[in-house]
Amino acid sequence: MFLKMELGLRRVRQFGGNVQGSSGMEMKGKMYVIGVDFGTESGRVLIVDVRNGAIAANHVTSYPHGVMDAAFFDGSPLPDHWALQHPGDYLHVLRTSVPITMQTAGIHAHEVIGLGLDFTASTILPVQEDGTPLCFVTAWQANPHAYVKLWKHHAAQKYAEEFTQAAKQRGETFLDRYGGTISSEWMFPKILQILREAPEIYDNAARFIEAGDWVVWQLTGQERRSACSAGYKACWDRSSGYPSTDFLSSIDSRLDSLMGTRIPTRVHDVGTRAGGLTHSWAQILGLVPNIPVSVSVIDAHASVPAVGVHEPGHMVIAMGTSFCHMLLGEHHERIPGIAGAVADGILPGYVGYEAGQAAGGDLFAWFLKKFAADFQRDRDERESERLSQPLAADLPGPSDDAVFERMTQRAQEIPPGGTGLIALDWMNGNRSILMDATLSGVIAGFTLSTKAEEVYRALLEAVAYGTRVIVEAFETNGLSVQDIHACGGVATKNPLLMQILADVTKKKVYVNALEHAPAVGAAILAAVAVGAANGGYDAIEEAVRCMASTNGVTYEPNPGAQGVYDVLYKQYCLLHDWFGREHSAFMKVLKQTRNNALHG
Amino acid sequence: MFLKMELGLRRVRQFGGNVQGSSGMEMKGKMYVIGVDFGTESGRVLIVDVRNGAIAANHVTSYPHGVMDAAFFDGSPLPDHWALQHPGDYLHVLRTSVPITMQTAGIHAHEVIGLGLDFTASTILPVQEDGTPLCFVTAWQANPHAYVKLWKHHAAQKYAEEFTQAAKQRGETFLDRYGGTISSEWMFPKILQILREAPEIYDNAARFIEAGDWVVWQLTGQERRSACSAGYKACWDRSSGYPSTDFLSSIDSRLDSLMGTRIPTRVHDVGTRAGGLTHSWAQILGLVPNIPVSVSVIDAHASVPAVGVHEPGHMVIAMGTSFCHMLLGEHHERIPGIAGAVADGILPGYVGYEAGQAAGGDLFAWFLKKFAADFQRDRDERESERLSQPLAADLPGPSDDAVFERMTQRAQEIPPGGTGLIALDWMNGNRSILMDATLSGVIAGFTLSTKAEEVYRALLEAVAYGTRVIVEAFETNGLSVQDIHACGGVATKNPLLMQILADVTKKKVYVNALEHAPAVGAAILAAVAVGAANGGYDAIEEAVRCMASTNGVTYEPNPGAQGVYDVLYKQYCLLHDWFGREHSAFMKVLKQTRNNALHG
Repeated sequence: MFLKMELGLRRVRQFGGNVQGSSGMEMKGKMYVIGVDFGTESGRVLIVDVRNGAIAANHVTSYPHGVMDAAFFDGSPLPDHWALQHPGDYLHVLRTSVPITMQTAGIHAHEVIGLGLDFTASTILPVQEDGTPLCFVTAWQANPHAYVKLWKHHAAQKYAEEFTQAAKQRGETFLDRYGGTISSEWMFPKILQILREAPEIYDNAARFIEAGDWVVWQLTGQERRSACSAGYKACWDRSSGYPSTDFLSSIDSRLDSLMGTRIPTRVHDVGTRAGGLTHSWAQILGLVPNIPVSVSVIDAHASVPAVGVHEPGHMVIAMGTSFCHMLLGEHHERIPGIAGAVADGILPGYVGYEAGQAAGGDLFAWFLKKFAADFQRDRDERESERLSQPLAADLPGPSDDAVFERMTQRAQEIPPGGTGLIALDWMNGNRSILMDATLSGVIAGFTLSTKAEEVYRALLEAVAYGTRVIVEAFETNGLSVQDIHACGGVATKNPLLMQILADVTKKKVYVNALEHAPAVGAAILAAVAVGAANGGYDAIEEAVRCMASTNGVTYEPNPGAQGVYDVLYKQYCLLHDWFGREHSAFMKVLKQTRNNALHG
Repeated sequence: MFLKMELGLRRVRQFGGNVQGSSGMEMKGKMYVIGVDFGTESGRVLIVDVRNGAIAANHVTSYPHGVMDAAFFDGSPLPDHWALQHPGDYLHVLRTSVPITMQTAGIHAHEVIGLGLDFTASTILPVQEDGTPLCFVTAWQANPHAYVKLWKHHAAQKYAEEFTQAAKQRGETFLDRYGGTISSEWMFPKILQILREAPEIYDNAARFIEAGDWVVWQLTGQERRSACSAGYKACWDRSSGYPSTDFLSSIDSRLDSLMGTRIPTRVHDVGTRAGGLTHSWAQILGLVPNIPVSVSVIDAHASVPAVGVHEPGHMVIAMGTSFCHMLLGEHHERIPGIAGAVADGILPGYVGYEAGQAAGGDLFAWFLKKFAADFQRDRDERESERLSQPLAADLPGPSDDAVFERMTQRAQEIPPGGTGLIALDWMNGNRSILMDATLSGVIAGFTLSTKAEEVYRALLEAVAYGTRVIVEAFETNGLSVQDIHACGGVATKNPLLMQILADVTKKKVYVNALEHAPAVGAAILAAVAVGAANGGYDAIEEAVRCMASTNGVTYEPNPGAQGVYDVLYKQYCLLHDWFGREHSAFMKVLKQTRNNALHG
């Protein structure tokens, strides 16, 4: 639901409309592809019309084991910063949701011509030669290192630093493509953690594999590594490949058996066929055997084709708990502080650039829940009024959404510059352009009359300033950013943020109405993997033109706000450079002191 | 109530005990002095035993017109930053509370041998030749400039800047005693505002006078200006007097008629007799005519004798909505950023130094009310539980105190350094040592797991760091600070802050149990004004020894916490210097931008 009317966002207008497929496929019978989005808490299955991208059915299954971060599934506590998953949960999603969507949509098995999936990354697991996860094997069931290390497993931080240091010392050029720092979320630090902390798991792992590639392997019997996850999460590059065994052995001699054995060196482009659906999985899912299953893609990256972007100049921002910024380029440019630059990583034929803001939706949720006392009190009062009514249980109660809506209304009434506050949006560290997870958030400018809605607006503005820093990093290094295409829950539900983003960046912001962009993107890439001869598409551009969503809202930059935001952005940059560069030890001292105080 | 048991403050111990007067006065009949404290919202009358300081009776009367800040008493709106009072309210306090306390205590008129008062400052009003306030005169009743400008009337800021600039340009040496800046709260900026904005009031004012001196004039018929308010609020000094007419005329030629006419140049020491109580006021109050009324004293400064301090080396901090730090010295030292250094200003024979922190109790109240959502929700839940019980109205409900107590418990459980946060306590500007009202607050180090109790503790620590900055400014400029004597509501009600203050400053903190230190201090000074021959004291030291309160709690610095706080204090100083000195324009830009955005 767009709140534009209530919010008085004058510069909003609808774009797009119904889109009909323009290929010659109308003459054929109906044909569908399945897109599966494996998220952090659950998996979602969409059935998508190949001709026009219409969604025929949609079903979510939560992971039975969820995210194991506080405790292992047997109840024993896990150390800080761990985050595990159970790989059986991914198969459970397929077994549950695919048959339900088929039934809901009333589609026959022969009408489904392909299947594609996207996955969080880097989410890795150790498996045996035949693909069996080590955690399925009795001997390793009780060992947490045998399970899936989810993208947000941050316990490999010290190995990430060791890896980065070693690469710097040896002058490894792959570092340039990742802004000079390897994240603890990525594949090698996680493998290094297993090697050091559970060498028995390392020794018994025939492979270390991204969960997305593992699901593809399960469905097709083919081990096909995705260029997308290899490129963004495992330092792979089309021309130079993975980091060399020479380099890896210099970190630990036991890593000499990693490349070529535990990680096959061949990788495969997104939008290509990984293999055909096996008979057994076809039976389980109620599909036709041997239909193409496409190579896995990272969830955020799948959003790019889903919102209709297939060429340079348009920045796509996937806005969820954190923000992921993607841009296509013709050539490799060195962009300092950008999380990754991978040839063919997002769409074939282009260098795919990725940047990130580590706190987005969860920053706003944290503030609303913990620090908006007046708004929470108002919610509680309305709840207690409601409960005093007869039949209260049948009526909808005030929810977090009600708090959010009232906060949005109040924050919207404050003019640009009216808060007196400037914040640094680093409550979850800084990905781009500083790539420093130890940084933390700042709010400056408090007075005794500062209200919660002013702080909230300052946080929205801070996130917009953070995006502008990223946009400017691209622009000053030779990549054009004409406009912004935002998608994801935060984009569709937070029109005030979208207007502020347009005002701060001075770019048009297109917010795609698509609710499940990654799954649609996975379906589009599956249609390309199927190929025109089998009812899909040969060219990604054509698939995007026919299947991408074009419904949404455009936010135009308000010229009246730009002068104020230029002034405030300059102040933001002063804080940014002081805390992030000149005194980057400041936050580290705070974190270290806290760590010592709490854990000795 | 001290919470030390529940809070596990190990290093707390009681000090003092019952004190009996040691003078020879036990042989006389009982004798009392009256101390009157004129605060911001109300006036308090104490009847105090001259022998031992015991409080025989205590009564408060609120000002009928309160503080007129949003609207004038006729309902018309006042501009931003105005704060007026009605002088009739002060007389109303005397007429109401003095007879009530006399009756409560069962004291005969002849047993009361003197009366003293303390007042907020600089709280000034224009009066006629005979002391009649201009606002009592029909012609000026409707003019807001005819009323009392309360200490926190901040609408004279631009005149304060003009005054400071002019003094700097002429190299006026009085500036040195006030850290180089004249506050908008002080007397001359407020007079300048009247001159410029209501010249008719200036012309018709025979005098501009501190409200404390005006009440003394009413009670005695004698106009006696206090050295305390003249010294701290009107740039007066024993050796050089007030600013010269030369200088004042250079600002505005009409100020040539200020000194010597509108402000008599003679001033009087605290602890001396201003005059005898008039017959008419003796009748109104039920006292004996002609008993000594002592010279007025500023409220905070009256705390010094009240808590037993009468010599250098002991810093007294009056802790209310803001903090006022007072220290006696043998000689004049130049202490940068200290609000005032006045010979005989606090106690005769010493240079009285004053510094300030602009946000204290109101900083914590602001945070608890606006930003502690979990705690407010908890309070609301308990209130709704309570209301569901029979007879709920008869039982005490959860209050702001309950929120405060739970917050204190949670914050107390966090070890020093355990918050990961550093704050600058400038939510109401900085008085000492930066003297910049345009500065504002900062909180740095947020993560998505930061909780309200961590921010609260960080604010307590920030106020303690702010005090340490002041202590170090004294110590590095030749004044010893052996220990801290804290008094006022925040000192007695916030033991966690007191422990943190001891840990951060590495000083013993004595918290005096006295609830109404200013009124007791006014009574002590009255006893000195009465003199030994009439049942009082000749020496302030003796009066303090006999009458001051010595009951309270001592907080010892915890050696284990000091290392952590040294590290964090260094970080505080980094922020302090960046925002307060190197980039002091940062906050100004934020405030200016906000002002433009909200008010065009």
